Amino acid sequence: YPPPADPVAQHFQAVAGADGQISAEELRRCLSQSGMSAYPRPGDSFSLETCRVMIALLDTDHTGTMGLNEFRELWRALEGWKGTFQQFDRDSSGTIEAAELHDAIRAFGYNLSRPTVEAIVSRYSRYSNRQIMFDDFIALSVRLRAVSERFRARDREGQGYATIYYEDFISMTMSI
Amino acid sequence: YPPPADPVAQHFQAVAGADGQISAEELRRCLSQSGMSAYPRPGDSFSLETCRVMIALLDTDHTGTMGLNEFRELWRALEGWKGTFQQFDRDSSGTIEAAELHDAIRAFGYNLSRPTVEAIVSRYSRYSNRQIMFDDFIALSVRLRAVSERFRARDREGQGYATIYYEDFISMTMSI
Ligand SMILES: [Ca+2]
Ligand SMILES: [Ca+2]
Ligand SMILES: [Ca+2]
Repeated sequence: YPPPADPVAQHFQAVAGADGQISAEELRRCLSQSGMSAYPRPGDSFSLETCRVMIALLDTDHTGTMGLNEFRELWRALEGWKGTFQQFDRDSSGTIEAAELHDAIRAFGYNLSRPTVEAIVSRYSRYSNRQIMFDDFIALSVRLRAVSERFRARDREGQGYATIYYEDFISMTMSI
Repeated sequence: YPPPADPVAQHFQAVAGADGQISAEELRRCLSQSGMSAYPRPGDSFSLETCRVMIALLDTDHTGTMGLNEFRELWRALEGWKGTFQQFDRDSSGTIEAAELHDAIRAFGYNLSRPTVEAIVSRYSRYSNRQIMFDDFIALSVRLRAVSERFRARDREGQGYATIYYEDFISMTMSI
C-alpha cells in the first residue's frame, strides 16, 4: 500500500533543498504554491517581510530558516489565523478594520483596549485607510503571538506584569 | 530676494497633498525622488514596510501619516543611519554583517551582547546569508530607536530594568 498522503510535508518538500530547511523566500513560494496565501484573490502571495516574521516566530536557534516540524506548526497556526480573518471580516470587505480586529484579538485570547488596537491598526494598515490586508493581518498575528509568549515566560506568576531588563527587552522585541 | 532654499521641505511638498500629511506610499516615493533611498545602487528604494515603520516611529497621534516637522526629524535620523551604514560596512560589501552590526549598534549608544545581535541579524537578513541590506538596516535602526526610547520612558531611574504591564508591553512592541 502507498503511505498515507501528507500534503503539508509535500508542500514543504516541494521547495526545501537537500538540507531540509527553507528560507523566507522559499517559504513564500511554498505558501503560494500550496494556496495558503491565495486570499482574498487567487493570485495573492505573502510579502517577504511576513515570511521572515513567520520564520522568526519559531526560529529558536536563530538560523533564519525553518525545518519541517516548525513548518507543520506554522501551517496549523496559519489555518487558524486565516479562519479568524474570514470569520471577523464581517462586512466581507476582504480587509480587517479596527472594530473587527478588536474582536479577532479577543478571540485569540488577548484582551487589548481600543487605543492599543488603534495603534496596531495604524502600524499594520497600508494606505492610511485603516484597513488591514490579509498579508499584514498574518504578520500582526505572528508578532502578537510571539511577543505575548515571551511576555508570559517572564510573568511566571501570571500577575499581568513583569520586570524586564533592557537587553532582554531588546531581544524580545527585535528578534520578531 | 527669494526665500532661502529648503530642500527637505521641497522633497516633502513634492508628494504631500493639500492636507500636508504623507502616507507610507508617499514617503516611499519622496525618499526615492530625493535620492535618500538610492543606496547602494542608484535605483534602490525603500520597501513599503520600512516606510511604515518610519511613519510609526514619529506617529504619536496614530494617524498613520507624517507631517513636515516629523519628516524633518526623520530626514536627520536617516542621514545619521546612512552614515553609520557606510562607516561600518568595512568590507564595502554593500551589506552589514553581524560583527559590523554589533559595532554600529554600539555607535548608536546601545550595548547589546553578541547573541542578541545574532538574533537581530536572523530577523533582518533576507536570504539566509546573514547579510543585512540597507533597507532592512533602516527598518532595524528605526525599531531599535523606538523600542529603546519606550523602554527608557519606563525605566525613569535608569536602572536598566523596568516593570511593564502586558497591555503596555503590547502597545510598546506592536505599534512599531
Ligand atoms: Ca472588514
Ligand atoms: Ca500622525
Ligand atoms: Ca559589510
